[in-house]
Amino acid sequence: MASEEKPLVVVTCTAPVNIAVIKYWGKRDEDLVLPINSSLSVTLHQDQLKTTTTAAISKDFTEDRIWLNGREEDVGQPRLQACLREIRRLARKRRSTGDEDPPPLSLSYKVHIASVNNFPTAAGLASSAAGYACLAYALARVYGVDSDLSEVARRGSGSACRSLYGGFVEWQMGERADGKDSVARQVAPESHWPELRVLILVVSAERKLMGSTAGMQTSVETSPLLRFRAEAVVPGRMVEMTHCVRERDFQGFGRLTMKDSNQFHATCLDTFPPISYLSDISRRIVRLVHCFNAHHGQTKVAYTFDAGPNAVVFTLDDTVPEFVAAVRHCFPPESNGDKFLKGLPVRPASLSDELRAALDVDPTPGGVKHIIATQVGPGPQTLDDPHAHLLGPDGLPKPAA
Amino acid sequence: MASEEKPLVVVTCTAPVNIAVIKYWGKRDEDLVLPINSSLSVTLHQDQLKTTTTAAISKDFTEDRIWLNGREEDVGQPRLQACLREIRRLARKRRSTGDEDPPPLSLSYKVHIASVNNFPTAAGLASSAAGYACLAYALARVYGVDSDLSEVARRGSGSACRSLYGGFVEWQMGERADGKDSVARQVAPESHWPELRVLILVVSAERKLMGSTAGMQTSVETSPLLRFRAEAVVPGRMVEMTHCVRERDFQGFGRLTMKDSNQFHATCLDTFPPISYLSDISRRIVRLVHCFNAHHGQTKVAYTFDAGPNAVVFTLDDTVPEFVAAVRHCFPPESNGDKFLKGLPVRPASLSDELRAALDVDPTPGGVKHIIATQVGPGPQTLDDPHAHLLGPDGLPKPAA
Repeated sequence: MASEEKPLVVVTCTAPVNIAVIKYWGKRDEDLVLPINSSLSVTLHQDQLKTTTTAAISKDFTEDRIWLNGREEDVGQPRLQACLREIRRLARKRRSTGDEDPPPLSLSYKVHIASVNNFPTAAGLASSAAGYACLAYALARVYGVDSDLSEVARRGSGSACRSLYGGFVEWQMGERADGKDSVARQVAPESHWPELRVLILVVSAERKLMGSTAGMQTSVETSPLLRFRAEAVVPGRMVEMTHCVRERDFQGFGRLTMKDSNQFHATCLDTFPPISYLSDISRRIVRLVHCFNAHHGQTKVAYTFDAGPNAVVFTLDDTVPEFVAAVRHCFPPESNGDKFLKGLPVRPASLSDELRAALDVDPTPGGVKHIIATQVGPGPQTLDDPHAHLLGPDGLPKPAA
Repeated sequence: MASEEKPLVVVTCTAPVNIAVIKYWGKRDEDLVLPINSSLSVTLHQDQLKTTTTAAISKDFTEDRIWLNGREEDVGQPRLQACLREIRRLARKRRSTGDEDPPPLSLSYKVHIASVNNFPTAAGLASSAAGYACLAYALARVYGVDSDLSEVARRGSGSACRSLYGGFVEWQMGERADGKDSVARQVAPESHWPELRVLILVVSAERKLMGSTAGMQTSVETSPLLRFRAEAVVPGRMVEMTHCVRERDFQGFGRLTMKDSNQFHATCLDTFPPISYLSDISRRIVRLVHCFNAHHGQTKVAYTFDAGPNAVVFTLDDTVPEFVAAVRHCFPPESNGDKFLKGLPVRPASLSDELRAALDVDPTPGGVKHIIATQVGPGPQTLDDPHAHLLGPDGLPKPAA
């Protein structure tokens, strides 16, 4: 991608959402975005959820600019600036090590960035992780950087470094004060566990009262339980979760996923003032999952919740139809013309009378707005089709974007 | 109370509800009801909430019998049997030490017990604590026992031992395996802090999904955070809370009360399967309290929640009218003819526009069903008026009871 001769270098990439099964909550260094514990996540397939980002550089650009979902945003915001600074530092470093030609002009070029999500931004679906992973990946391509992008993505949003890989990904907290060993690594590729399925249960969205950045720092400052969790509980859970993933042990994976979600929300509640991301609907989903598993005498489905009331449910492909029927039973869809089930096709199934009786939940119509069915997926991709670019030849967003 | 000559010895006592500000959750010995941590509570005034219990013994009774709120219950239930066994053991022991006449016949007499609450039993208002404290106290009177009743009450329900005293009461967890040092002690009498007020916010009662006995044992078995709390957090908090009570430091008392309630519920959430006693209404009350305090720039009100969604709010007398107005604003009473405010009189107050704006809560009509205003009160009482007896001369419940 020789950039010197061309008036405009454009690259378009996509990046996935990831869902942590061992949760990240709390930084030991706010500036470098270094976490107080390691975490582990599952990368979701981009067929259902992804961010697309186009980055363009040109000697004709007079300033860095960014458009998110079609609207120009302030390029001066600190996290974005940290990413840009870091990618330019890596580009400079790489070229100064002599394994390349002398630094090209492109390093001094200003960049235009356009980014869109194919899902609602504030739906609690970790849009910032996909967004910053995609930004880091696109910037690396356009500036010709090959090195590990964990730090670039992390500076934007901690969990974004986990969206740099497909499959099952750990973010090692590291020990160094400069954060050089706080990096994401793939634990297993997306092909490792083909039966695993992911159902996102989107519940009626109350406005989010406490963002995760502010929330986690209040937790670090005030929750005695959070410190204990980070130091004494998570290290063992990382080992156990890695083992469950490698062995494709769904029961172990599911139980630990639920326990770690619950413990994360427990530390939120132990924060002062307390933080509550779970709603009554979230708690009904929790009850539904435990009733479903109790009925089957084994862990067949497992929930996890991030900083919002939506549930992400893991299960295996052969359980999906029955569990979706159970969700429909407990949360009868409201006839709003919207499609209740999105994403991967799910064949209809009916509930047995025994399971129906075991679901000790009063039906709550409309409690779950819709389900997105998806699976484990690959990491960021570069799109070759020039039609995919979100920026036109003039370096401005295309009308359609 | 010489019982030998009389055909029937009857005594009637009352006992108070207590609300823990450092929470008890989890036993180290289920049989002896020994806790994994010490706890501290405030005894509520019996003018608003109390249990009344009549105990009668007679040589004519052929079996132990018990009536709760007018209905005969199984006298064979283990906790009740443990209380009866323990009180008879204490009576026997006392008389065998020789500071009395030879054992009277009354020790072998069967007992009839009748007990009523002046508040709904399952309202999450720690009715079992008042109930077993009252039982222990009445049995001690009728069998002529003068010693510490902590163990008798504790065997019925752990927190019942704290209802044996008025004012501010600690339950020292103790260290001995036989539990002899696991006793309740008064930290300060009911006259110590006359300005302190207690508002019970009764919220729409969902049925309780997990009783506290089963819940706390699941927590002990599954929550890593609960063990840490009991061992590493509570001891320091007991010291701090005792200090706040002695100094009448409301800000310290209130903040620690809220933190400890939150941490207790955090350990419930860390239990597997998780336990949730707080509802969306509970969380709105939490938010209201923090908004109210933030508006005033100090901790003027403090919440605590037990194993249910009702809030118990502590404040000082001069803050009651404004806080009640704030509750009315956030939870407009539904016109059901019921009285919204019960207990101590509260003078009407209006909200300032500033406070109204600061209460960042969407009004939820009917979210709080009513408020019971009360204060710190004395321990168990013996009633001298024979009309107070719940059992008639025949040893059976009076028709009115």
